[in-house]
Amino acid sequence: MSIITIIGSGLMGSAMSVPAGDNGHEVRLVGTPLDREIIRSLREKGQHPTLPCALPGNIKPFQFEDVRMALTGADLIICGVSSFGVDWFTEAALPLLPGNVPVLNVTKGLLGYPDGRLETFPHFFASRRPDISFAAIGGPCTSYELGDRRQTLVCYCSDNLATARYARDLLKTPYYHIVPTTDVIGVEVSVALKNAFAMGVSLAIGMSERENEKQNSVPQQKNSLISGAHDGKLHYNPQAALFAQSCIEMRRLVRLLGGNGDLAGGIPGAGDLYVTIFGGRTRRLGTLLGKGLPYSEVKALLANVTLEAVSVITRVAEALRIRAGRQEVNLQKFPLLLHLDALLNQEAPLALDWENFGESGMPEDVCK
Amino acid sequence: MSIITIIGSGLMGSAMSVPAGDNGHEVRLVGTPLDREIIRSLREKGQHPTLPCALPGNIKPFQFEDVRMALTGADLIICGVSSFGVDWFTEAALPLLPGNVPVLNVTKGLLGYPDGRLETFPHFFASRRPDISFAAIGGPCTSYELGDRRQTLVCYCSDNLATARYARDLLKTPYYHIVPTTDVIGVEVSVALKNAFAMGVSLAIGMSERENEKQNSVPQQKNSLISGAHDGKLHYNPQAALFAQSCIEMRRLVRLLGGNGDLAGGIPGAGDLYVTIFGGRTRRLGTLLGKGLPYSEVKALLANVTLEAVSVITRVAEALRIRAGRQEVNLQKFPLLLHLDALLNQEAPLALDWENFGESGMPEDVCK
Repeated sequence: MSIITIIGSGLMGSAMSVPAGDNGHEVRLVGTPLDREIIRSLREKGQHPTLPCALPGNIKPFQFEDVRMALTGADLIICGVSSFGVDWFTEAALPLLPGNVPVLNVTKGLLGYPDGRLETFPHFFASRRPDISFAAIGGPCTSYELGDRRQTLVCYCSDNLATARYARDLLKTPYYHIVPTTDVIGVEVSVALKNAFAMGVSLAIGMSERENEKQNSVPQQKNSLISGAHDGKLHYNPQAALFAQSCIEMRRLVRLLGGNGDLAGGIPGAGDLYVTIFGGRTRRLGTLLGKGLPYSEVKALLANVTLEAVSVITRVAEALRIRAGRQEVNLQKFPLLLHLDALLNQEAPLALDWENFGESGMPEDVCK
Repeated sequence: MSIITIIGSGLMGSAMSVPAGDNGHEVRLVGTPLDREIIRSLREKGQHPTLPCALPGNIKPFQFEDVRMALTGADLIICGVSSFGVDWFTEAALPLLPGNVPVLNVTKGLLGYPDGRLETFPHFFASRRPDISFAAIGGPCTSYELGDRRQTLVCYCSDNLATARYARDLLKTPYYHIVPTTDVIGVEVSVALKNAFAMGVSLAIGMSERENEKQNSVPQQKNSLISGAHDGKLHYNPQAALFAQSCIEMRRLVRLLGGNGDLAGGIPGAGDLYVTIFGGRTRRLGTLLGKGLPYSEVKALLANVTLEAVSVITRVAEALRIRAGRQEVNLQKFPLLLHLDALLNQEAPLALDWENFGESGMPEDVCK
């Protein structure tokens, strides 16, 4: 039995306590200052207010003022904050972490710099705490379903393969499967972009819905035996085209930043994109934009929703433009991502550049 | 204006008449001997009995006995039969084709040989008619939606890039987008396997449904604003894991056969897999197997359904075993495909090898 300390008790941080607890570890779940009510609910009722699953019995909830106690003797620390909590984590939590304990990061996103550099969170954290070995999780894993112990497959990436394996050995269960890898760029760039491109694919859902509203009568195909099957309401050719284009642009960005493009067409890329499309928030953003609403209206409709897609699209598009100014990248290779940016940041009308989507797979296309 | 002759008036062959007709070409749609009623309906009522879209006016339907007339003066010939019609096409139609007219093939599948060789249809046709230049279509394109002129993105592949471009120039429209490529293996192996792996991903749908039936009460998430969004009924972590594993094994097979693996994570691979999962027949097969029914029962339930997935899984698994016997391939790199084969051909109980799914993206993993 080991001690695993999770900092951040939102959905994903808390869901990580399920495999950790099921493996018999002592799990110390530490709330951020925004998580006070969650920790109180866990202490008083043994229930998480938003994660509906049955949590293992061996979870000890801590308010953040007790974080030092929660860190004492920890064998693994999990950073469980969302990308909007990274600044807080960096200032308030990172300096407190013991130097000899590996950190596993669930946060998804990329940091942008004025020179067009994009940095993953594990690399950023390591630059602040070079005495700690960092790993990060990427792959299709909704917190609800991990909490419900559904079959789940993810990558743990780290510059130090031993760290990824160490975390894997502590957390793998018969329902939570983990592939360790050193391809930090391949994993982290793919999972950051999956939010961006889940919005992209969802544009086609909104386009279908608008079309259906215009037509009023939609031919219904009989598929009632199969839940979620093609019902004639949504159009899958355009969705699938945008899905493919998303994978292509993820792969291009991974390669541009020095990773192995394969993972963009695997667990953290295509796989995580798939689950994110069916996940809710980002789908809703893309669907509303796909119906033709300008982002200013969409933003008002989604006032209470945290939109990681918006920040990653904005940051990556900005980095690409800076690099294009130095002739390091051909912007025509990212027509979907740049249009997503235009929709969000220039109130551009929806106009997908279908003519320039796709790739030939031939050498001249791959190298560019 | 050119003359485009389509042989095979089933769903996909007929749907190809839509972009062809919209471009102002003379379209000659020739039925196979199984298509007599379709051609009769088109002649008498101007309606296709199973494809519900509005067909362009410039389509001339031909029964097969008039095929020579339909071929006279053709600028492009489209082979529009399904993989179950390939033997017929090879015997009855291929010998009649003029030598100087390119042929574009919509058929998806692979041929297997006793030495473990797998052959694409354009390569097989070219071996029979070396005087003809063949191209083939691969990508996410359901016939219904192409017929409805939904935005669609596909690859046209050919050993001769000029042939792919020639067909593209004749058929591209503002809704039908075509990327020419010489990566015939990358396109054709991916699109053949998409049927196999759509069954694979659908296993998770059946697993969800069985689970839900056991539990009776399913927590419902409120997403009613978004059609098709996560409703708590289906579990997307396992679906997405199988989706990623499918892309990984497609890429491995493409590389094994000498193609560029990128396309397995692009239009003909991930993209076509996405649309096929939502398409109907193959989803139903996988869902029923995922619910735990043995294939003998599933086969009885699906008596009237054409299952390309079954033949491609059987052929590819057989080829892999033959090659593994010669130490040319490591069967452990295809755990999903081989389990699909075991489900179908050995009545094996459902037991997914989650532990061996995934890839690290690291060099030793990529090369194997």
